[in-house]
Amino acid sequence: MLTEVDHVGIAVEDLDAAVELYRRAFGIEPMHREVVEAQGVEEILFAVGTSYIQLLGALGPETPVGRFLATHGPGVHHVAFRVQGIARALEHLRAEGIRLVDEAPRPGSRGTRVAFVHPTGMGGVLVELVQEP
Amino acid sequence: MLTEVDHVGIAVEDLDAAVELYRRAFGIEPMHREVVEAQGVEEILFAVGTSYIQLLGALGPETPVGRFLATHGPGVHHVAFRVQGIARALEHLRAEGIRLVDEAPRPGSRGTRVAFVHPTGMGGVLVELVQEP
Repeated sequence: MLTEVDHVGIAVEDLDAAVELYRRAFGIEPMHREVVEAQGVEEILFAVGTSYIQLLGALGPETPVGRFLATHGPGVHHVAFRVQGIARALEHLRAEGIRLVDEAPRPGSRGTRVAFVHPTGMGGVLVELVQEP
Repeated sequence: MLTEVDHVGIAVEDLDAAVELYRRAFGIEPMHREVVEAQGVEEILFAVGTSYIQLLGALGPETPVGRFLATHGPGVHHVAFRVQGIARALEHLRAEGIRLVDEAPRPGSRGTRVAFVHPTGMGGVLVELVQEP
């Protein structure tokens, strides 16, 4: 079902400062930047092998990432796994009684389809499933 | 410098219950289980593509993961990136003024060499570097 770690989503206060930090620390350059209005975020992706580091800036305080930053401060926000059949994966999780955030896949960045699993169902970890275009 | 996401380290209260959850949710089976006394953890690895999900159980309350669980509850504890030259990577981070937990690589599980970067240097994310045997 899971084919790769798609990305680790990291909430940051200042996207440009965070890009500069990752550039300095690891010598990597962003390969994608996108505002995802529906999720209230601006995201930046760095490719790391077959996965991505995803930096997430909030579009405002009353967004999920804005509230996360107010409560927890910057840090890991979610972990995303790549899947091939996202609808089937959601169906399987539902059948196992695992609480979902998204009952059906919705558009993510890069033309992906994504769905979040609720952290109460996954031991405190906000898990995202990602199906590539 | 970074070749892959090596693993996502997830602190759990009950390793066996967490294994059962990941088995049910994603149909995956552990491929490695190891007590790492020096780090005060018992860890379980699931392979996901070229990366791992690492479940971390504390060997006691006065261990790093035990204190993390007492403060934050279960959830993502750290993110590990695979590197080829870990000593050189540490040297680079030090030269960039990024605070380290480990000034030199030390033995990790699976015969790896590992070093942690301090979360205050990495925007609240505890980052581990991993060099495979």
